[in-house]
Order: sequence, then C-alpha cells, then structure tokens
Amino acid sequence: MSITGNILRVNLSTKTTALERPGENFYRQYFGGRGLIIHYLLKELALGIDPLGPENKLIFAGGPLTGAPLPGTGRSSVGAKSPLTGAYGDSEAGGFWGAELNKAGFDAVIIEGKSDSPVYLWIKNGQAEIRDAGHIWGKKTAAAQDMIKEELGDNKIRIAQIGIAGENLVRYANIAHDLTHFAGRTGMGAVMGSKNLKAVAVRGTQKTALADPETVKELAQWMGQNVNKVSHLHDLGTACFVTMLNELGALPTRNFTSGTFDGAQQISGETIRDTIYVKSESCYSCPVRCKRVVKVLEPYNVDPVYGGPEYESIASLGSLLGIDNLAAVAKGNELCNSYGLDTISTGVSIAFAMECYEKGILTGEDTGGIELKFGNAEAMLEMIEQIAHRRDFGKILSEGVKRASEIIGRNSAEFAMHIKGQEIPMHEPRLKQGLGVGYMVSPTGADHCHNIHDTYFNVTADMIKPLGLLNPIPLQNIGEEKMRLLAYFGNWIHLGNCTLCCMFVPWSYRQVVQMVEAVTGWTTSLWELLKVGERAATLCRVFNIREGFTKNDDMIKSRWFEHSFAEGPLKGVKFSKEELEQARANYYRIMGWDEDGVPTQGKLMDLGIGWAEKYIGWRRG
Amino acid sequence: MSITGNILRVNLSTKTTALERPGENFYRQYFGGRGLIIHYLLKELALGIDPLGPENKLIFAGGPLTGAPLPGTGRSSVGAKSPLTGAYGDSEAGGFWGAELNKAGFDAVIIEGKSDSPVYLWIKNGQAEIRDAGHIWGKKTAAAQDMIKEELGDNKIRIAQIGIAGENLVRYANIAHDLTHFAGRTGMGAVMGSKNLKAVAVRGTQKTALADPETVKELAQWMGQNVNKVSHLHDLGTACFVTMLNELGALPTRNFTSGTFDGAQQISGETIRDTIYVKSESCYSCPVRCKRVVKVLEPYNVDPVYGGPEYESIASLGSLLGIDNLAAVAKGNELCNSYGLDTISTGVSIAFAMECYEKGILTGEDTGGIELKFGNAEAMLEMIEQIAHRRDFGKILSEGVKRASEIIGRNSAEFAMHIKGQEIPMHEPRLKQGLGVGYMVSPTGADHCHNIHDTYFNVTADMIKPLGLLNPIPLQNIGEEKMRLLAYFGNWIHLGNCTLCCMFVPWSYRQVVQMVEAVTGWTTSLWELLKVGERAATLCRVFNIREGFTKNDDMIKSRWFEHSFAEGPLKGVKFSKEELEQARANYYRIMGWDEDGVPTQGKLMDLGIGWAEKYIGWRRG
Repeated sequence: MSITGNILRVNLSTKTTALERPGENFYRQYFGGRGLIIHYLLKELALGIDPLGPENKLIFAGGPLTGAPLPGTGRSSVGAKSPLTGAYGDSEAGGFWGAELNKAGFDAVIIEGKSDSPVYLWIKNGQAEIRDAGHIWGKKTAAAQDMIKEELGDNKIRIAQIGIAGENLVRYANIAHDLTHFAGRTGMGAVMGSKNLKAVAVRGTQKTALADPETVKELAQWMGQNVNKVSHLHDLGTACFVTMLNELGALPTRNFTSGTFDGAQQISGETIRDTIYVKSESCYSCPVRCKRVVKVLEPYNVDPVYGGPEYESIASLGSLLGIDNLAAVAKGNELCNSYGLDTISTGVSIAFAMECYEKGILTGEDTGGIELKFGNAEAMLEMIEQIAHRRDFGKILSEGVKRASEIIGRNSAEFAMHIKGQEIPMHEPRLKQGLGVGYMVSPTGADHCHNIHDTYFNVTADMIKPLGLLNPIPLQNIGEEKMRLLAYFGNWIHLGNCTLCCMFVPWSYRQVVQMVEAVTGWTTSLWELLKVGERAATLCRVFNIREGFTKNDDMIKSRWFEHSFAEGPLKGVKFSKEELEQARANYYRIMGWDEDGVPTQGKLMDLGIGWAEKYIGWRRG
Repeated sequence: MSITGNILRVNLSTKTTALERPGENFYRQYFGGRGLIIHYLLKELALGIDPLGPENKLIFAGGPLTGAPLPGTGRSSVGAKSPLTGAYGDSEAGGFWGAELNKAGFDAVIIEGKSDSPVYLWIKNGQAEIRDAGHIWGKKTAAAQDMIKEELGDNKIRIAQIGIAGENLVRYANIAHDLTHFAGRTGMGAVMGSKNLKAVAVRGTQKTALADPETVKELAQWMGQNVNKVSHLHDLGTACFVTMLNELGALPTRNFTSGTFDGAQQISGETIRDTIYVKSESCYSCPVRCKRVVKVLEPYNVDPVYGGPEYESIASLGSLLGIDNLAAVAKGNELCNSYGLDTISTGVSIAFAMECYEKGILTGEDTGGIELKFGNAEAMLEMIEQIAHRRDFGKILSEGVKRASEIIGRNSAEFAMHIKGQEIPMHEPRLKQGLGVGYMVSPTGADHCHNIHDTYFNVTADMIKPLGLLNPIPLQNIGEEKMRLLAYFGNWIHLGNCTLCCMFVPWSYRQVVQMVEAVTGWTTSLWELLKVGERAATLCRVFNIREGFTKNDDMIKSRWFEHSFAEGPLKGVKFSKEELEQARANYYRIMGWDEDGVPTQGKLMDLGIGWAEKYIGWRRG
C-alpha cells in the first residue's frame, strides 16, 4: 500500500527525531489527513494550551492514496490547534509535496516544541535533519525556496514553508507548498512560525507501493479520458465561479452586503484567460489542470513564479472589497503568496475595515491616513503589506476580524464576518443554504473545504442517490433532508480530508472505494469509508467540546439571517434565527450528537472511538 | 428491474381486490420483505389490535431481487402482527413461490379482513381471484396442494398454505410453501387461519425484468462455480450443525439444560446421509442445494413429499427432547409439515412440558396419562397430534410456552424457554453470546434469522473488515465491539430480510451491491443498503414500542445467565445480569436508541423515516 507505516516525530526544543509505526489498523481507522491529525492532537495536546506556544503540535500528513499516480491525490494536510479559532485547525494544500513525503518514506510528520532559533527541516529518503534557517528567515517565499534548493544542491526538492506573515505570527498566516499551493486556513503558518520553523524540505526517490498497480492505472486512465466530461474546471480553473456566482446573485461583494458586483466581468475567469493568463498548471498526477499562472507588467509587476489567483482570492481581494482592477487583484494575490498570508482571511479582514471606515467606525486617524473605501485597490495592497509585517493599522487586522473588532469596539463586531473566529470564505449562505449551516457546525469555523456545496445537488439527485438520498433537495432549503445531506455528504467530504482526495476531481463513490482497495490492498466498502469520515468529524467535535466550545459557537452571523440583499436574484432571501436553530438541532440529531452538540456515548461506540469519551463525558449531565 | 411496481391488496371481508403502485422511491427505501411489510403494518394497523382479529393484515412480499436467476434470491417473506408475541411478526420461506409471484406481476400481496368461510386466493399473471376452499379446509398440506392444482388444472402452480394448525389458530402455526419450505416463526399461519384463508396459489409466466442481464448471469455463474468454496452446506445441508455444535458443547439438549447430547451422532447429518436420505433439493436458481429429502418405512412411514428435517427441526424434536431416534424425529418433522406447525416452537413447547413433567410440575393427570419424559419419542409424536388439533393437553401447548406456563402456573415459567413469547431456536447463547443479545433485542423475539451467528466471526475478521470492524471479536464476549458487530452485521442481516437474500448463500457485500444494481438499474452502495436494513430494523422497533414493549422485554431467560452447564465445553459459562444489561444498553446506544430502547428523533431523521416519530414521540420524556 502507499502507506509507508512510518510517522516521523521531530522535537524542535530538543532537536531530536523519532520514528513511530502505529500499525495497519490505525491507518485503516484514521486514514491520514484530518483523521490522523485529530487522533494525535486529541490524545497529545493538553486542554487549553496556547496555540502559539511550544505545547502545540504541528502535524503534516498525507493519506492512504498519497503518492499513488491517481488524479486528485496530490494533496496533503497540516493541522494543529488553531491560533485563529482556538479550536481544532487544519488546512490542505495541493501540489506535489505530499507525494514527495510519501516517496521519502513517511506518512506524516509531527512537529513538537520550539526551536530557540530559526530552523528548517530537511527530510530525505527516511532521514531527517534539523538545519539552521537564520539566513533564510525574513525572506519572501520564492527567495527562500531558491536558497534552500541551492544549499541542499537539489532542484527537485519540494518545500512547505512560511513567509514573513508566519514568522510574524499573523493569526491567518498560511503554509506555502512549492510557492503556488497553500494550506491557507486556520493559521497553520503562525503555528509554524511560533516554532521558529521556516520550512520543511522534502526529497524522496522511493517508489510508492501499490497493491494492485493495474487497477490504479486503469482508474487513472479513465479519469484522464473523462476529466472534461466530469469536471468543469479544465477550461477556466476555479475562476469560472466568478461569473457563475455573480449571475446567481451570490458573488460576495463589499463585505457580503451584496451578491452581485458590477465589476464581476473585469475580474472573471474569462477575463483572466483573455488577458493576464500565462499557462495552466496541475497537481501531482492530475489531468484537471485547474491552476492558472498569471503575469502582469507595470505598474503592478505580478511575478508568475507565485502562480495566479484562485476563485477565493479573486473574490476576497476583488468583489468583496469592491475592486474590479484585475491587475491589482493579481498583485494582492502575489503579495499574499510571497508573504504567506491566507487570501480569504486577508480579504475579509480588509473588507471588514473598509465597511467600518465607510460607516465611520474607523477614520483616517485609525488607519494612518489610508482611505479604506471599497474599491480602493492601492489601500488593499498597502494593507496587505501592513498585515504581513504586523505594523501600523495592519497589526490590528493581522489578528483576524474577531479580535480586530474586539480591539476596535464601537459596534464593529457586526461587520466582522467570521464563525468561531475564522473569516468566511467566498460562498454565500443565502444561496447555498446547506453550506451556511455547514459553516456553523464546521470544526474549523467558516470553512468551504469541509462543507457541502448545495449547487451540486440542485439539478439532479443522481450524485446523492447512492447515499440513500433519493430526491433532489432544493438549494435554498435547510430542512431535515438538507441536514441529512449535510451529515452524509459532509462525512464524504471529511473522508476526502482523510484520504486527501481533491473535491475538484469528481471520482464517484465507487471509484474511491476502488482506489483505496487498489492502493492499499484492503477490501473495503463505502460504509467503512464514510465511517472513516464521520469518525474524523466526530473527533474534531470532541476536541472543540473539550476546549469549551458550545452550540452557541455554532451560529452564523446575524447579517445573514436578519438581512437580505436589496437587489439581485437573492433579493429578499433571509433566514429566521429559529429556522437556523432548528436546522442546527436537526444536524446534531442526525450526527448522533445530543441537543448541546456533544457526541453521544453511543456515537463514539458506533465509530469505535470509545477512547474519546473521557474527554467529553463531563459535558453530559 | 425485477420490481414489478405492483402491490395487490385483497380484502377478504368485502371480497375485493385492488392494485397499488407506490413508486420507485418507495421500493428503494423499503426494498421488500421486512422493510415493505413493516412500512404497511406501522402505517395501517391501529394500536392494540387483536392479531387474530380481522383488523390484522397479512402481507406476503418478495424483494428487489426476487425472480432474478440469482442463487439465494428464492425467498419470500410474510408478516403481520404476531399472535405469538403481540409484536411485529414476520417469517421467510425459501423455495419458488416468491419468484412465481414476481412472474405473476406482483411484488407483494396485502391481505385484509376476514372471509366468512374458507377461501383461497388464486393469482395468475396480474389477475387475482378469491375462491371457495370449503372442500380443502381440514386437509393435510400435501392433499390440499394436490386438490388446488387439480382444480386449477395446472401442475406448475406454486402454493403457500396453512395446515390444520393454522386453521385451528395454533399460535405458532406456519405457512408452508410447496410443502417443503416454511415461513415458520411468529405464527403467521394462525393469522392466515384467522382470516379463513387456506392458501395463496400463484402462477406467473412473465419474464422477470433485469436491468443488466449480463452481469446477473456472470454473478450467478460465479456462485455456481464457487459455491463449494464459500458454502459448507452443500454436503450435509443444515444438518451438519448437529455434530459441529455438539462438539462445541452447544447442541440444545433436554430443554436447554445441556449443550451436549449422548445421542447426537444418531440424529446427525452424517447419519441422515447414510440412512434415510433420498435426495437433495434446492430453492429457485440456487446451486447450494441445502435441502434434504428423507424417507422412512415402517413403523414411522415418513413421506418424502414433505422433504426432510433441517437442523432446527432435528434439534428441537430430537436433542432438545432427549430423543435419539432419527426415524421418530423425521416423523415428527413430517407431522409438523403436514399440519403446518413450526417445528421450533413445537419442539420447545414439548420440551417445556417434559421438563415440567420430570420436575413434577406436571403429572399424568395433566397430560392425560402421557408420560412426558425426555427421550419418549412416542409422547413427542402424540403431542404434535394434540397440538395441531388443539385437543387435550396439547391445547395448552398450542398457545406457546409463555401462555402455557401462565395456564399451568406452579413455577413452570422458569422452564418456558422464550423471549417476548417466541420459543427459542436451536442456538446456544452461552456459545454464541452475541446472538444471545440478538435474541433479546430482535423485534420478533428469540429469532435466529434476524441475528448474528458469532461463530462466523471467531476465526477471522476478514468477513467484517469491510464494515469497519477490524479485529476478530471473540465468540464468548458481549463487549462494546461485539455490540457494534451486532448492530452493523444485524443491519446487514436485516438487509437480507428486505432483499430476501438467503444467509446460506454467502454473497460478499460487494456482490450484493452488484446484484441490486444489475437487477434494478439503480446505482447504489453498501452505505445505502445497510441503511435500508437499519431502516427496517428501526421501524420494527417503533412498532413494538408503540405496542407497549419496553426494555424489560429485551431480556434473555434467567436460565442462561444464572446457570451454567454441568459438563461439556461450556461448563461454567454464564453471564451476570449486569453484563447483559450493559450489553443491551450499548446496543441501544450504537443503534441510536435512547436508554429505554426508543429510537431517537435523530435516528429517524437519519434514516429518512421522520414520519414514524408520531408513533413513539409520546414515549420520550
């Protein structure tokens, strides 16, 4: 199987490394990614630790398919207690780094403690070395990458690294993988920075073991031949969503006060294709090629080495800020990438400040004279600099909108768009209403990667019938059937977070079962796989319950249920709080959680994780 | 698909018939068999009706595979509120009748009301006719079958019928299908008798529709070629268990007071093979050929037209009564078959009386002079006559051991081996401990057909790994993992009760998914299928809860937890009541039921059966 059986443990305080081999049943229950990470975090982190203290652990993990030449399996995950939310945190990146780690002989790397000076980790074919990074600290990511490759004398090295945002402990700093793939959310870059760890450089030349290479090959060939029938991302990449969502009235605009943006066409995937597009790129073994590299000349000078903006970045640095200048948006994206900032949280933080500014809650006195109005592209670029360097007004925004609004006060909290402290991604809950509830209940706060995207299921139920959901469920609905979809399909998404299979490569349920079997040699089933996903989701829930999160934290911003858009297709659409509370209660029930959202003892038994009972038993009666 | 979409409704009071077509989604949620039957019973039966009154409904049902030329799919189910237990009742028969019903154009037949005189139902190719049965009433099953076939002028007719036991309302009367296949348990024959319905004769010449005939053929061929590798029943049939279980110390003997029987060899499958065996028979499209036809000459004259004794019959009329005379056991079996008596309940009832007799609770005064001692074969045969005719002492035993012990009094209840009023089958809970808990919680009382057989899982976990149960679970264990097995594999067994796929044809999980897809054209998964099983199990639970059953009814006889055998491999093995209560509590939890065993609202939502909430909501707080 592609699982190596080896987990590398690195203690940066003591500068020691160790090898663990938890055995086949461990992998079969927890797989990798989120499942593996939460297993270790829940068992090894003490209650209430500081996410930016040495007690936190940062875990990089692949999954059971990692390294196999199968489209969509190029992802890897990195998790820790989140400095943004105080809850369970993880994020995934596509690319090649995960496969390289597998070929270097490891399924996961657990990083503990804190180095007393900047270091990077060098992993090659079963060996690990902690090396000085003093000379690299403070460098932009591209420069840092060049220096590490040159120093180690191998241009094929894959590098996961933080930029200055992570070094400076910006709470939503990301981890860049080979400059263009990002583990963006939940502030994992800040955790890495807090450990004085600049980078994890990996090189592996071992062959990934496959139980049934012939079937793996057939599956890969099938996707290669059918990708354009089953994926719509080949043409424009994720940027295709700009036009699509704007037409549906759900393109987040001016800090979520509108769902339609006059300048949508100027920042659309079509415009990128026709103007600043350089080339398409892919992840490991993937024919979808959804990545777009862009280049812009004067005055913005966007360096193609940092790739190009995805949909989330275009919306959060564009429409959400009322900016229709594509070159500026591309520059903002490049800056975030080079500094290691999550574009979503960055954009939402600036949007928050802009709305506060326009409403008079902030003035030029607060912002150092910067006119933080919607549409001001130069202000956006300046704020990115300030946030990454944690200086001037940007220092406040570098804390994320939840903390920023607490610092600013003056009713600014109303405009701080987050759930559990994590800034909300570019998907509108008034359209994708199931996703809205998904935002509420996700263990990582507002998150679109551990969530359902209702638009998939609106037209036809074919995709969900094998789950036993037989009827099409309307997009704008949060009734019982939608909550069943959120639970069932949510578990499927969670499985993807454990196999690290990309949601943009639309493998069928059956194909994923076949992939797991062909790679690992296990005889499995969709039942077993969905339980893997549910197990991971439930353990994350346990982690957060233990940390003191309650159902009150599972609520969406009142802006979404109290207000509706003044115009566009979603005009007039809003929820009542009672509807949302009912939906939340139904989701809890279907997940086997009690009315306070605490997983029942029976659910833990059902999932074979009775060992987690001790962490939450005290929360029940 | 093999589903015809047609359900025939017959009202015997008004002598009318009607056709219903509930639509594809109905079938996909409830499948057939138990799922279909409980759906109708729960929605249509009023609370507290008399199982033997005209308000009860008797439902015959096939499943989505019925009629397809696939091994193991020859079964059909028949259900109603049980006159034996007062709870949900159903039982299955193998054979050919179900496939014939499909080819006649119907998935199920719902029989309502009560005829004022004996009738039988004649179904042929989409047409149904209620015909006089006055001349057939009172006949033995073979004679009745001949008369119906002759009268209708077609020797290929398939007949489900009751014998005089059903006519006389013996509470454990069965329904015979083509003389040698029996829906034995829960007294469905008495319900049929209470409606004055002697038989349902069926003839169909329509072709069963298959979505993917090629795959159906491949699967059937695979089982044909591999059956002897995956099934151990081909050689001796179910009678093979006599020797096997005796060696394990778990052959029910002398009313469950021992697990080893000195005369086991004389009544074993090997002895049958070497002495009274005539030929092997199979069910529709099945290569397993587990059925054994026997013939005995003077003095017992066992007619081979009634087939031969299965393991359950051999044990319940043999070792359980201390009888080692194989010819007499075969005769007892033939009498039960010709009179339409369930051999298990018959044997357990006689065993109860014998133990009472030996202990002095009963005397010759009670029994009309019959010496009801263990080992007395003639007494056994005489009691079968008396039970079927409901005369003399047999009239008391015809009520089943629960009611009989209430009539007899004098501490006899201790020896009445039943759960929820249904007599216990020939599987020893001190060996198969998971099955013991399965007896406790089965909706139909002590039942081995809706249960797990722990012996399967003792040696290797391979069979249960695709369910996510990764470790072998010891036979003699009722811990959390065993309860997970009972829940998961129990749902799989329940699925079999809905697809009507025989547990003796060991299709893999994957093959069953393939079979359902190839026959119906649906794209499904093991997840959807296990949820079908869970849905049926949960609805049966709802039915019983509504009828007033509580967790106190989910308990095994104290004989099994307080006492252990004095000898044999199971010497000293017993449970504490606390262990059993803990196991029961864990099973409830894992099933998503509350501490009183009431399915939670969340579980109903999870299964898409929120409509059932109104029947049990009042039971919660």
